[in-house]
Amino acid sequence: MSLPEPSRRDTRLDHYVDTYAERTHGLQVSAVRALFAVANRPEVVSLAGGMPNIADLPRVELGASMDRLIQERGVQAMQYGAGQGELFMREHITEVMAEEQVHAHPDDVVVTCGSQQALDLVTRIFIDPGDVILAEGPSYVGALGTFHAYQAQVVHVGMDAEGIEPEALRQAVVSLRAAGKRVKFLYTIPNFQNPTGVTQSIQRRQAIVAVAKEHDLLIIEDNPYGLLTLEGQPMPALRSMDADNVIYLGSFSKTFAPGFRIGWALAPHAVREKLTLAQEAATLAPPVFSQFAISTYLEEFDWRGQIVAFRDMYRARRDAMLAGLAEHMPEGSTWTTPNGGFFVWVTLPEGLDSQAMLPRAVSARVAYTPGTAFYADGLGSRNMRLSFCFPTPERILEGTRRLGEVISAELEMNRTFGIDPGAARHHDLHTGPAPDIS
Amino acid sequence: MSLPEPSRRDTRLDHYVDTYAERTHGLQVSAVRALFAVANRPEVVSLAGGMPNIADLPRVELGASMDRLIQERGVQAMQYGAGQGELFMREHITEVMAEEQVHAHPDDVVVTCGSQQALDLVTRIFIDPGDVILAEGPSYVGALGTFHAYQAQVVHVGMDAEGIEPEALRQAVVSLRAAGKRVKFLYTIPNFQNPTGVTQSIQRRQAIVAVAKEHDLLIIEDNPYGLLTLEGQPMPALRSMDADNVIYLGSFSKTFAPGFRIGWALAPHAVREKLTLAQEAATLAPPVFSQFAISTYLEEFDWRGQIVAFRDMYRARRDAMLAGLAEHMPEGSTWTTPNGGFFVWVTLPEGLDSQAMLPRAVSARVAYTPGTAFYADGLGSRNMRLSFCFPTPERILEGTRRLGEVISAELEMNRTFGIDPGAARHHDLHTGPAPDIS
Repeated sequence: MSLPEPSRRDTRLDHYVDTYAERTHGLQVSAVRALFAVANRPEVVSLAGGMPNIADLPRVELGASMDRLIQERGVQAMQYGAGQGELFMREHITEVMAEEQVHAHPDDVVVTCGSQQALDLVTRIFIDPGDVILAEGPSYVGALGTFHAYQAQVVHVGMDAEGIEPEALRQAVVSLRAAGKRVKFLYTIPNFQNPTGVTQSIQRRQAIVAVAKEHDLLIIEDNPYGLLTLEGQPMPALRSMDADNVIYLGSFSKTFAPGFRIGWALAPHAVREKLTLAQEAATLAPPVFSQFAISTYLEEFDWRGQIVAFRDMYRARRDAMLAGLAEHMPEGSTWTTPNGGFFVWVTLPEGLDSQAMLPRAVSARVAYTPGTAFYADGLGSRNMRLSFCFPTPERILEGTRRLGEVISAELEMNRTFGIDPGAARHHDLHTGPAPDIS
Repeated sequence: MSLPEPSRRDTRLDHYVDTYAERTHGLQVSAVRALFAVANRPEVVSLAGGMPNIADLPRVELGASMDRLIQERGVQAMQYGAGQGELFMREHITEVMAEEQVHAHPDDVVVTCGSQQALDLVTRIFIDPGDVILAEGPSYVGALGTFHAYQAQVVHVGMDAEGIEPEALRQAVVSLRAAGKRVKFLYTIPNFQNPTGVTQSIQRRQAIVAVAKEHDLLIIEDNPYGLLTLEGQPMPALRSMDADNVIYLGSFSKTFAPGFRIGWALAPHAVREKLTLAQEAATLAPPVFSQFAISTYLEEFDWRGQIVAFRDMYRARRDAMLAGLAEHMPEGSTWTTPNGGFFVWVTLPEGLDSQAMLPRAVSARVAYTPGTAFYADGLGSRNMRLSFCFPTPERILEGTRRLGEVISAELEMNRTFGIDPGAARHHDLHTGPAPDIS
């Protein structure tokens, strides 16, 4: 006698499954969220997250400053605000962008709830389901998630040690359009790219801007880290080379503090109008008190000096990571040498799989982000992103030591069980065309 | 000799017009935004906006409290946070909801950037282009804008002095579904509805919940004003009557301050998971510092006492408005008598058009929101929304006096030019089925 089948209805955990929008079926738990849970365990050295180190901000003076703000201007700072963002905030934003040779009018800035929301609004106004977005391979996991949420098709463009290859970009645009695809924009992070740490050279920037202009391809320039250069001056933004064809996204999350959730988009005027309308529909207004708080910080504190202090602090951490990798990584590993930002991109020896290895790494009390998180197409299994932003230099050194042991143990296991690196599993063959500049 | 036609390209102001997503073509400048500009002129008595009066918040104590927050917990308060919102914030939110008999678990709450973003995320996960949303006629202009931005079709359901008519709701669901429409949810504001000020009776709430359940229709309950009752106790929320089928939206904008931009959605567990993923794609996390600030306020201040103070302050303003209307409105005008919230809904004498009259009202230094803003279908031309939340009682009285003069002058002009109210212009015939309880 066989048991009766349960009805479909009874086994359905989500009563609303037939009610959701088409786009909702694409929403997935992000690798970043799962990793945040791991990263919070104190015994684990997390090289996984992207949290800035804000412990050194002048909290006593900041507290006093916020006290005055609320007492003197609280009625405005706690009230509703403009959908585009407050004018004084947009004026300050143009001052910040001038550090990277972007000369813009406050009227063309839209303030957002973190630059993630700028990404969301830009995607919202440009992307219909099936539209193509070009992006570096690999690219920022949070951007890929947003693009996915709007049912875009992401096509990766090859990069080398100077960033996106212009000829690969040209070929991608031409061939995709010839195939009838609507290629909407290039999404690129020119400085200390997340996850590779690679920075576009000036010549490369000019070439990318030229290809985009020639092919009428909009550029979305995402630049959260640009001012956190560890050697030399900040590079000129793509936006400084073509004001008509670049939408620039910025953020205070890395140059001040992420908890206020203030980012922005600088866009050509017609696009800016659409972004403002989209912002009004999304939130009525971006966080108002945060705009007062950040503007007060920019007015009353030496924010340029604070960025210099951040650079010194992050430089020591980057150096610790590079020293640790040189000391502890087994032969056959390679990695990038970032000149700023938060991240190093590691390529493991042949035959290893960073995602499969992650549970063993966490058991050994070190965490990283597997490379596959940064590809829309399943590449990256031999890669991992290591972040040097949050742990101390000592912890970073210890983390690389633990990581080296885990990788060595994996290699040893492969040798013991006679796994031939050349005949690796299927997805090992798809290691991404990532830059390996050790 | 005729002049050459300019090329299409030359006359096109927006270079990107062919690049936008389909949904972007539906974005329109909101009536609210245009009105904010008018409302800000000091000589105008604005009865148009929906800004709460927060001038009486204890700013000295609040400033000191924020000072301590930054000094003692600034490293957490200014850092990234959870996509769903901080646990302590969600716990406080369940305490606030308990005031309206909503008993919920913090795990089912998603914190948002104002309740507008809760509306946006709910619409995002449920609405495909062409899906139907049912809503009161008239309904909140900001919700209509968001629904429009996701290409929903809004169908209004008739209401009377007790809110939505259950039989009209049933007929709408049945007939729309019979016509092959995907009816996704009912959007309703049960307390002191925006724009009418109408509150659903308990019996009416039970009937609406029953019809929705019977027809497997999700309810989105938007409740920003529920605690601002001017007589008696807050009513039980729809969510307290059916936890499985109601998504409840709340906000601190009216019970504390809107500038922190913190609202929330309380949703059945499966829906809550989708909302969290959508939130991560939209902003990574809702404003973190704001969550610390509001939680600190709830912990350190007598927030219930502050709500009692708000009620007393708004009661005096509502009474001023009702007295002013009774004294100054010409015969043939009717209006609602709200028991809370911010708004009174006026129906003008036959033959008048509130939108056409607005420029003359602003010339007479009084502003209101024309009724058509609150309908998706062009109704409401004989209606206007008056808000009593922001101006002082004296200004409200003066505003109604000016408004009475403008309306009387309109009527006089109609008589002078022999305009027969019975043969009014086309769109006068479409006056909405709004409740007229004067």
